[in-house]
Amino acid sequence: MKILITGAAGMIGRKLVRALMRSGKVRGQPIRRLILADIVAPEAPDFDVEIETLATDLSQPGAAESLIAQRPDLIFHLAAIVSGEAEADFEKGYRVNLDGTRALFEAIRLAGRERPYVPRLVFTSSIVVFGNPLPPVISDSHCLTPLTSYGTQKAICELLLADYSRHGFFDGIGIRLPTISIRPGKPNKAASGFFSSILREPLIGEEAILPVSETVRHWFASPRAAIGFLLHAAEIDTRPLGQLRTLTMPGLSATVGDQIEALRRVAGDEAVRLIRREPDSDIAAIIAGWPQGFDARRAEELGFRGETSFEDIIRVHLEDEPESRIAEHN
Amino acid sequence: MKILITGAAGMIGRKLVRALMRSGKVRGQPIRRLILADIVAPEAPDFDVEIETLATDLSQPGAAESLIAQRPDLIFHLAAIVSGEAEADFEKGYRVNLDGTRALFEAIRLAGRERPYVPRLVFTSSIVVFGNPLPPVISDSHCLTPLTSYGTQKAICELLLADYSRHGFFDGIGIRLPTISIRPGKPNKAASGFFSSILREPLIGEEAILPVSETVRHWFASPRAAIGFLLHAAEIDTRPLGQLRTLTMPGLSATVGDQIEALRRVAGDEAVRLIRREPDSDIAAIIAGWPQGFDARRAEELGFRGETSFEDIIRVHLEDEPESRIAEHN
Repeated sequence: MKILITGAAGMIGRKLVRALMRSGKVRGQPIRRLILADIVAPEAPDFDVEIETLATDLSQPGAAESLIAQRPDLIFHLAAIVSGEAEADFEKGYRVNLDGTRALFEAIRLAGRERPYVPRLVFTSSIVVFGNPLPPVISDSHCLTPLTSYGTQKAICELLLADYSRHGFFDGIGIRLPTISIRPGKPNKAASGFFSSILREPLIGEEAILPVSETVRHWFASPRAAIGFLLHAAEIDTRPLGQLRTLTMPGLSATVGDQIEALRRVAGDEAVRLIRREPDSDIAAIIAGWPQGFDARRAEELGFRGETSFEDIIRVHLEDEPESRIAEHN
Repeated sequence: MKILITGAAGMIGRKLVRALMRSGKVRGQPIRRLILADIVAPEAPDFDVEIETLATDLSQPGAAESLIAQRPDLIFHLAAIVSGEAEADFEKGYRVNLDGTRALFEAIRLAGRERPYVPRLVFTSSIVVFGNPLPPVISDSHCLTPLTSYGTQKAICELLLADYSRHGFFDGIGIRLPTISIRPGKPNKAASGFFSSILREPLIGEEAILPVSETVRHWFASPRAAIGFLLHAAEIDTRPLGQLRTLTMPGLSATVGDQIEALRRVAGDEAVRLIRREPDSDIAAIIAGWPQGFDARRAEELGFRGETSFEDIIRVHLEDEPESRIAEHN
């Protein structure tokens, strides 16, 4: 089993590599080789298989072909520039998120013309393919009306994934990840950052800023759940997907108030007191256009599992992130 | 008012040019110049304005830029290769239907960086952006799950149209045309051909073959209605569209049996007897995946109007197509 991961240097990519190292196999077959690609060379993990790490930009001529020349059996295509950057730099967003993905898909199709080659391809999409108008609960049959260029690029790649799969060029499956909480690391400037920081910072005794109301509702999964989705997508029989090759992943629909109460139960009032309310109308306006909940029954029927309470999400963070341990011993 | 029409040599393109000649103006402004482009040079109509006809392939480097250099105020982007060809020739389909459209969009965006330029762009999409799973009545908020590469390319262009419009690069509106009936001309090999030929041929005293059951239901508009949609899309205020920049056009949901009864009322039993039933399971299987009806309320509220009976559709054909006149005098 040869595995290619694009975007391997990112938070999800690195966690995925560690999970693959732990299991050592996929679909019952031992992992023989890992090809880890990103715009900067990913760190080589300490893992007793052939590992190649490389810095590559899929949108550059020949880059995708050279990755695919090794004919990986399984491809996790995680590489993308993030929402804010894709919105600010229109050309770069389309070049990386659309042209880069299409170059990868084309390289696979063309490799298959030389001799049969139909790898499993797992593509990470996002719930931001959904925009206005949004019902309170969004099913997989709801139209894609992204409100950002990033969401547009992901939606287009979902369509390409379905068409390339239908033609038999690869065996594709797309998974729309919920907003990941608790993201490890430092606070960042993403509009969604507070969904993680209002838990992560108080857990280690630091202050965090809440820029929106406690009634704001959104759709969440832990990083561990996200890795579980990716691994499961690599394993399952894709035939029941039909033409809907991309699935919204199960998540937890929760309000900011739910997050805070879960924090109180896990870490006490002391932690909750570290959340400072500082309303920000810009952030509130962005968040207002975001989805609140999904009907993820299709994914659940196929065996994808998310968390069912925010306490679980906090416990996952405490278990998985060494940096969170300070709080655990408070 | 300078107007560019891509795909101007096609059936819809030629009818659109004639309609523009008749009205002489758009949005109250006289038409000063028509730029008619297609893969083969369109015929120059006899119309007292500046007319340029040119053979061009939008997917070739520089082609879109040179069309846009004249800064048309209004663009009808009709150019595409058809469903069957896009399915059989994967690369050509993506090159013409996706890359050609994107090249046009990019040329407009880049022209606007030199000095302000925000033309109205009317894009023809198709109801084949919808595939399985299909409810009996499909609304504009239903997901796009095309079953062909052609449908995928149209769906992707709808997403691009929305994103370029949101960024203010142009003022785009997409219209999903129903199946056009009665198409003028000779019978062709398209799976949908019989929807026209079972009326068109008997009207001029010729035999036609019906390959499917009379219970088959589909969504129709006349060529005249299609031209009306295009002209209306050029005129309307696009602000109420929001993020859903593409609309399913009003059509008539009718069965083959409804078509035949309308033929009987307009042209008598004699005409109906010219329909020869010759079941074709291949065609039946293709048609089975097609949509049967739509909720086109959004388009209707914006003033788009289709036909309400198949007799109207037949009468439009008799009025608009000189070749149909033989039957009229039978």
